[in-house]
Amino acid sequence: MKKIEAVVRPTKLEEVKASLEDAGFSSLTIVDVKGRGQQKGVIQQWRGQEYRVDTLPKLKVELIVNDEDADKAIDIIVSSARTGNIGDGKIFVLPVEKVVRIRTGERDGKAV
Amino acid sequence: MKKIEAVVRPTKLEEVKASLEDAGFSSLTIVDVKGRGQQKGVIQQWRGQEYRVDTLPKLKVELIVNDEDADKAIDIIVSSARTGNIGDGKIFVLPVEKVVRIRTGERDGKAV
Amino acid sequence: MKKIEAVVRPTKLEEVKASLEDAGFSSLTIVDVKGRGQQKGVIQQWRGQEYRVDTLPKLKVELIVNDEDADKAIDIIVSSARTGNIGDGKIFVLPVEKVVRIRTGERDGKAV
Ligand SMILES: Nc1ncnc2c1ncn2[C@@H]1O[C@H](COP(=O)(O)OP(=O)(O)OP(=O)(O)O)[C@@H](O)[C@H]1O
Ligand SMILES: Nc1ncnc2c1ncn2[C@@H]1O[C@H](COP(=O)(O)OP(=O)(O)OP(=O)(O)O)[C@@H](O)[C@H]1O
Ligand SMILES: Nc1ncnc2c1ncn2[C@@H]1O[C@H](COP(=O)(O)OP(=O)(O)OP(=O)(O)O)[C@@H](O)[C@H]1O
Ligand SMILES: [Mg+2]
Ligand SMILES: [Mg+2]
Ligand SMILES: [Mg+2]
Repeated sequence: MKKIEAVVRPTKLEEVKASLEDAGFSSLTIVDVKGRGQQKGVIQQWRGQEYRVDTLPKLKVELIVNDEDADKAIDIIVSSARTGNIGDGKIFVLPVEKVVRIRTGERDGKAV
Repeated sequence: MKKIEAVVRPTKLEEVKASLEDAGFSSLTIVDVKGRGQQKGVIQQWRGQEYRVDTLPKLKVELIVNDEDADKAIDIIVSSARTGNIGDGKIFVLPVEKVVRIRTGERDGKAV
Repeated sequence: MKKIEAVVRPTKLEEVKASLEDAGFSSLTIVDVKGRGQQKGVIQQWRGQEYRVDTLPKLKVELIVNDEDADKAIDIIVSSARTGNIGDGKIFVLPVEKVVRIRTGERDGKAV
């Protein structure tokens, strides 16, 4: 199994969730995060002053999927989260060794 | 080492923590999350109207343990987090390559 | 690639971020968490009563780096997050199999 962690714009969450669900990926977990990428935050203007905003609010969408479904889920997230502007986010894929559904005790492929 | 990520009902946190501590697992990290599983959220009634609640508040309990302790910790979480109803949660296990205790610089088995 | 998860004192965040940035690690994600370590929380006094605070607020700093940069980033976090007192935090390193920059579709080394 794989864990897909996608850091996306908060404004794109609904589109990402809907696109994933349309493709059969209904299960997911969402975490409020803050972050910065290669631009090291952004310069903003306020009352004529420039100041640097260090980190921006993002959402991390986490989904655990079977190996053969990972690339499809990644493609869906890329398409639905992209605006084409800097700050669109990143996707990270990590290996998962075990999955358990707490209610039933089901494991791995049956529990994902 | 392994990272155990357990997404559980908020109402079960105290029971999960106490059961883990009784078995010697005192160290853990807790993250506020929202999520949905295979039921894609729930239908609720409010003033006679039905509406779908997309994601529900959950808690993610993260604990890093030595390899030989992982199955014991998983069993404890399953027993203490289970109500038998849908939405009881999921456990994911990921490999961990390195652990460092910041105060002492201790590594791996000594730092977990 | 590696995922470095560092649970640190909230009061150390700015120092950790600045030290990482000085060494070229500008990209990171921050998560608000609560946790406890081997001391199982702390005993506090309030109006003459002792009570146990179960978990303390911490920040989890997550950064995905190329393999050859992981040890440098870990050393920087240890130096900048350490006070020498209990509760300084922990660093966990996990393997990452894939990275995608959503804006460009760039992968792995080019996307970190
Ligand atoms: N290497 C990384 N490690 C941890 N988090 C990251 C990393 N890169 C990006 N992120 C997270 O993703 C969010 C969005 O990053 P962002 O899209 O700005 O990446 P980028 O590399 O700067 O690409 P772009 O040039 O398209 O902006 C950041 O705010 C941060 O939370
Ligand atoms: N595949 C998954 N990927 C990421 N998060 C998940 C996944 N499955 C479940 N979760 C998280 O666990 C929480 C609880 O899931 P839940 O117990 O409803 O799983 P389920 O598969 O629907 O099982 P059940 O039929 O017992 O309800 C979700 O709200 C979500 O945060
Ligand atoms: N094994 C672990 N699994 C998950 N989270 C952990 C683990 N150990 C520590 N943490 C997280 O790191 C935070 C800080 O831990 P802490 O520095 O107190 O570790 P410690 O092992 O007790 O070391 P020290 O003796 O220096 O206090 C905890 O509040 C918790 O969020
Ligand atoms: Mg950027
Ligand atoms: Mg469910
Ligand atoms: Mg401690």
